[in-house]
Amino acid sequence: MPAQANVKADISVLIARKDLAALKKYLEPWLPADLAPLIAELPVEELAALFRVGSRELDAATFTYMALDAQRKLLKVLTQEQAAALLNALPPDDRTTFLNELPLDVAMQMLGMLSPNERQVAQSLLAYPDHSVGRMMTLDYVAVHPEWSVREALDYIREHGYDRETLNMVYVVDEAGHLVDDIRVRRFLLSPLDRPVKALLDGNYTWLAPTDDREKALGLFRKFDRVALPVVDENKKIIGIVTVDDMLDVAEEEATEDIQKLGGSEALDEPYTTIALSKMVKKRASWLVILFLGEMLTATALKYYEGELAKAIVLSLFLPLVVSSGGNAGSQAATLVIRALALGEFKLKDWWRIMRRELAAGLALGLILGVIGVVRISVWSYVFPNTYGDHWGLVAATVGVSLVGIVMWGSLMGSMLPLVIKRCGFDPATSSAPFIATLVDVTGLIIYFTVALVIMRGTLL
Amino acid sequence: MPAQANVKADISVLIARKDLAALKKYLEPWLPADLAPLIAELPVEELAALFRVGSRELDAATFTYMALDAQRKLLKVLTQEQAAALLNALPPDDRTTFLNELPLDVAMQMLGMLSPNERQVAQSLLAYPDHSVGRMMTLDYVAVHPEWSVREALDYIREHGYDRETLNMVYVVDEAGHLVDDIRVRRFLLSPLDRPVKALLDGNYTWLAPTDDREKALGLFRKFDRVALPVVDENKKIIGIVTVDDMLDVAEEEATEDIQKLGGSEALDEPYTTIALSKMVKKRASWLVILFLGEMLTATALKYYEGELAKAIVLSLFLPLVVSSGGNAGSQAATLVIRALALGEFKLKDWWRIMRRELAAGLALGLILGVIGVVRISVWSYVFPNTYGDHWGLVAATVGVSLVGIVMWGSLMGSMLPLVIKRCGFDPATSSAPFIATLVDVTGLIIYFTVALVIMRGTLL
Repeated sequence: MPAQANVKADISVLIARKDLAALKKYLEPWLPADLAPLIAELPVEELAALFRVGSRELDAATFTYMALDAQRKLLKVLTQEQAAALLNALPPDDRTTFLNELPLDVAMQMLGMLSPNERQVAQSLLAYPDHSVGRMMTLDYVAVHPEWSVREALDYIREHGYDRETLNMVYVVDEAGHLVDDIRVRRFLLSPLDRPVKALLDGNYTWLAPTDDREKALGLFRKFDRVALPVVDENKKIIGIVTVDDMLDVAEEEATEDIQKLGGSEALDEPYTTIALSKMVKKRASWLVILFLGEMLTATALKYYEGELAKAIVLSLFLPLVVSSGGNAGSQAATLVIRALALGEFKLKDWWRIMRRELAAGLALGLILGVIGVVRISVWSYVFPNTYGDHWGLVAATVGVSLVGIVMWGSLMGSMLPLVIKRCGFDPATSSAPFIATLVDVTGLIIYFTVALVIMRGTLL
Repeated sequence: MPAQANVKADISVLIARKDLAALKKYLEPWLPADLAPLIAELPVEELAALFRVGSRELDAATFTYMALDAQRKLLKVLTQEQAAALLNALPPDDRTTFLNELPLDVAMQMLGMLSPNERQVAQSLLAYPDHSVGRMMTLDYVAVHPEWSVREALDYIREHGYDRETLNMVYVVDEAGHLVDDIRVRRFLLSPLDRPVKALLDGNYTWLAPTDDREKALGLFRKFDRVALPVVDENKKIIGIVTVDDMLDVAEEEATEDIQKLGGSEALDEPYTTIALSKMVKKRASWLVILFLGEMLTATALKYYEGELAKAIVLSLFLPLVVSSGGNAGSQAATLVIRALALGEFKLKDWWRIMRRELAAGLALGLILGVIGVVRISVWSYVFPNTYGDHWGLVAATVGVSLVGIVMWGSLMGSMLPLVIKRCGFDPATSSAPFIATLVDVTGLIIYFTVALVIMRGTLL
């Protein structure tokens, strides 16, 4: 592979010289995935020149690895004919992804460039809902019949297999097109040529519906370790396949969505580095405002306890410490439960098991923090007398006891709220760490002051 | 596929009747991945009986899909000979995963059961560091020579390919075993039989080192859309391959680790539902205590401002509101930046671009919250006079101005700290949402009281 540093410059020189043969030779050793980000930085006219030189297959492969921006820029400067050739050569699933990102009018214009066959394919794929299996489907698969011999099947594959996206699996269908089995292509390679295809069937197969959610597909790929899964209609007729390379992207996108929601903003749906600032602010502001409005209840609650605060200013010193510990414990619990739910580690009906675990964990964690808090206040009062007044023992007791209560409460809320949200049919990741922290802030205040009123009555309060 | 409800009962009956032929027939239509969780619930003696009946390949396949607990239980009740047969039949990479989870003495005992060949394989794989490509490697691949014809290569594959884990890619090596290229098996199927293998080479290949981190492997699989990648030693000799099905698991595990760290605990490394309570408390307590110790600084800071608090109790009412908004903005920024870093969307040297973005976003978000805060205080003071005293205008100004400052500060800290942590060679996900929130709590206090001192000097303070 040539050194990457001067590639852009080299290509520019060759294009300026119009030395197309040398350019073609220069590009040969490159992998499309490596080439795509490099050439994306070229001036758009040079990019177009480059795409006029390459072979149609190389072009299509490189195009699928380019960023959406670069793809759109390129299509604009190609001639109508060149653009049409490129679009027609794209694998159907990559083309769906590309068209899906375009404004409707541009997408329709592109559809118009496709050959009647490819247009029908593209339209049928775009008709499935967003995030469905249908949107990721490719129609490039190989199907053979059970009554054929292995030799006939291999001949058929050799003849018709060229533009099939994946040949790792071969699909066996009856005369009506109903899926009978899927067989790894290696079974064909390893079998005597005169054996009937029927003899290779093992009944070991699973399938997807085009309307299935892509998360379901991801789960099946994980479970069955396949490189491709067939998609069938309601009559079990095979209509396409989904390949594992798309699944790595789905896994990444789903994890990103969950992580961003857990961080307390809407999912960006675009890379952080390229999303428009105004769009990002909008996605973050909505949640931040909701949390702010919720947190306003702390001002209301504190107003209610204003008398106590005035009598014992010392209480306000430990307010952020005690309350935020509950929020932190709640964040932990929420994150663990939400991830376990996403991975299918337990079902909603197991809620009481989770609740018992979290109450026990919350008690242990609360005791640990409570002891540290009491030790801190005692040591300070011993080393710097008068820091927390004569009643520092009561202050320590208040902080210790409320920490146990608030950490348990935080763990309980953090673990149960995602389940409630899921039960109501929403995405549990919405109960993000900041959301739980805000909720526990408000309720934690009430626990803190209630404990203080009980312990300090007659002395400080 | 039979209905799942009664499978366990059916199997138990057949085993009790010792009707092994019927049992074998009953098991035939099941996929190993479906069968594994069902039979895992059988009493261990029945499980052993089941594994004595099945074919060795079915057994090994089903075994790889079973949970670790069930695997260990089963091996204990099988005879030495049966266990050895099962272990020897496992694919090398699945065996590495299994052995890796066992205590050292049990793993050594299992190694002793392997045939000399398989033992050597297992030992060499286990010698690679945890989370390295070497640990996930399988040695079951097919290599051919460039001077062979397609016919010779296909004959060789047919003869030697049976127990190779993946036959989707064929590796071309020279006489010394150096990797020359990797070719999809479909190229062989689609080529005339008398063409030399040499003519199929396209130089389009990429490779991994056995010591590479599995995250690097995941990145390459994402980029190149391959179903397998070759692993080569320092002399570019091929020593194994890594397959895409393992990558889906890696993607899941890495996302889980990041999510759990972002939630403010250590990565559990075990499912939430099955990890021992004491272990989980330990993993959560360490971070919770660190955050608690950090949050103690709020008590110190507040002690410093005790005089101001006593003079203007109204300041303490808005303390949690103002400070937590900074924490929330920081959580958002940290989560977005950490995920973008994990996906390789930008490099550390782009820090100033991120900083500019976050300062702009923080300003916008701070202004939004500041305006809401001022409106809230003004409306309350109008509707319920005397809630916040005569100087409510100054209170509103203090809250509004400090919100802008704290939200900007939170966004800045949230976005820059992960970069600093990464620069120091640690995992940026360690700068979790609760960690940022705690940091911003302490510094936010100082901002709040400084603003108050400036605005309220001569009136309330």
